[in-house]
Amino acid sequence: MCELMGMSANVPTDICFSFAGLMQRGGGTGPHKDGWGIGFYEGKAQRAFHDPQPSVDSPIAQLVCHYPIKSKNVISHIRQANVGSVNLENTHPFSRELWGFTWTFAHNGQLDPVIFDWPLRFYKPVGTTDSEYAFCWLLDQVRLAFPEPPQKTEPLFELITQCCHKLRALGVFNMLLCDSDWLFTYCTTKLHWITRRAPFGVAQLKDCDLTVDFRGETQENDIVTVIATEPLTDNEVWQPIQTGEARVFKEGETCFYRSE
Amino acid sequence: MCELMGMSANVPTDICFSFAGLMQRGGGTGPHKDGWGIGFYEGKAQRAFHDPQPSVDSPIAQLVCHYPIKSKNVISHIRQANVGSVNLENTHPFSRELWGFTWTFAHNGQLDPVIFDWPLRFYKPVGTTDSEYAFCWLLDQVRLAFPEPPQKTEPLFELITQCCHKLRALGVFNMLLCDSDWLFTYCTTKLHWITRRAPFGVAQLKDCDLTVDFRGETQENDIVTVIATEPLTDNEVWQPIQTGEARVFKEGETCFYRSE
Repeated sequence: MCELMGMSANVPTDICFSFAGLMQRGGGTGPHKDGWGIGFYEGKAQRAFHDPQPSVDSPIAQLVCHYPIKSKNVISHIRQANVGSVNLENTHPFSRELWGFTWTFAHNGQLDPVIFDWPLRFYKPVGTTDSEYAFCWLLDQVRLAFPEPPQKTEPLFELITQCCHKLRALGVFNMLLCDSDWLFTYCTTKLHWITRRAPFGVAQLKDCDLTVDFRGETQENDIVTVIATEPLTDNEVWQPIQTGEARVFKEGETCFYRSE
Repeated sequence: MCELMGMSANVPTDICFSFAGLMQRGGGTGPHKDGWGIGFYEGKAQRAFHDPQPSVDSPIAQLVCHYPIKSKNVISHIRQANVGSVNLENTHPFSRELWGFTWTFAHNGQLDPVIFDWPLRFYKPVGTTDSEYAFCWLLDQVRLAFPEPPQKTEPLFELITQCCHKLRALGVFNMLLCDSDWLFTYCTTKLHWITRRAPFGVAQLKDCDLTVDFRGETQENDIVTVIATEPLTDNEVWQPIQTGEARVFKEGETCFYRSE
């Protein structure tokens, strides 16, 4: 399987601390050694780093860890391959443009190969994973339903939720999806989140000997939500997302929620 | 204006040497301090690095310079902004998916603002540059003419050449375009290329005190073509591409050529 990590914040925030924990699981404290990737939104644009090497000893992961890129929305993924060989084209997150926005997607899980028979119209996969195929199908459904951007986001989120339910019927579908403004999360088996806000405290990573005191890193009104397959810290309470639950974060807060 | 750099090779080759020269021009020996980007193809996939900071003091540019990523096709760009503010969404190269391939584009020049009235159908710009708009328009024309990938590339290259002529009628249009397999170049004012093959020799960068002896870096059958706005070395003969000339490289060799 793989691990996902995401962030939604109301101020541009770096994710160096959380990424330092996650990257250990890419061949160090975890078996996810088949590549990793991360996409940072800065305004409407997304800056991505991809590497088919294990994150634990990737010079690019070291850079991401030590070079604070400030972002309000981040999606990251470390891969343990099941479908599709280990190479760059199968390395999450995947991106496509819709309505002049770069949509970014990462998936954890495995889908029945029947997914590859679902017809695609606008978007085609570059690689061979079930994940990228599912992303293309999902974005097709959004584009078919909304050739132009909808005035309100709720019908859009309802549609994406319905599509996620259909994908989950094919297997395990935990995913993160972002359009630069909001971060959509969907859970089949495992996904956790935590919102940090004032009063801030100290957090201790699970996967390496690293502690941060957020009191020295934040302003009073900052709201920062981190989403991860498994909690990244061992001294804080992370909320599990339930099976069949869709939760959308914007500016660090939940803005849409559906459970089955 | 901006500067372009590209590479087409018949074996995966790193571009560290050429990039070391180019990055100096991003705020060091040249005025192109408004961001830079580079896209490396590895198989069908493209790995991009973007930074709205000047390349000469960008930690990401330092990484690209010292971490040899082997690729057969590369597109890079350093920016001196004219249309569109300095931010990530206006940082070249731009990418879009067509037929399951990631197409990457970088432009040097400036187009009449009338470009923004040209209708777009499938692809929409994320940022505000004339360059990204022109890329979306160009890819639209390709997709309209070829909803499915053509069996032969010649009609495709003819179409792209015709589109480039139309864009050149709006101003200055020097560009690089790549689909992972071939590298399309088009010149209005300034673009040079050099092909290195056996017997290899020594090259000396213009922009910094760096020399490479390609005899120690290459195999006998290697063919590596580098394209750049201005020659990057001062002891080799670079070929100018002429105004209105389209030249497509594949595996380091010219595979299509049209002049007006």
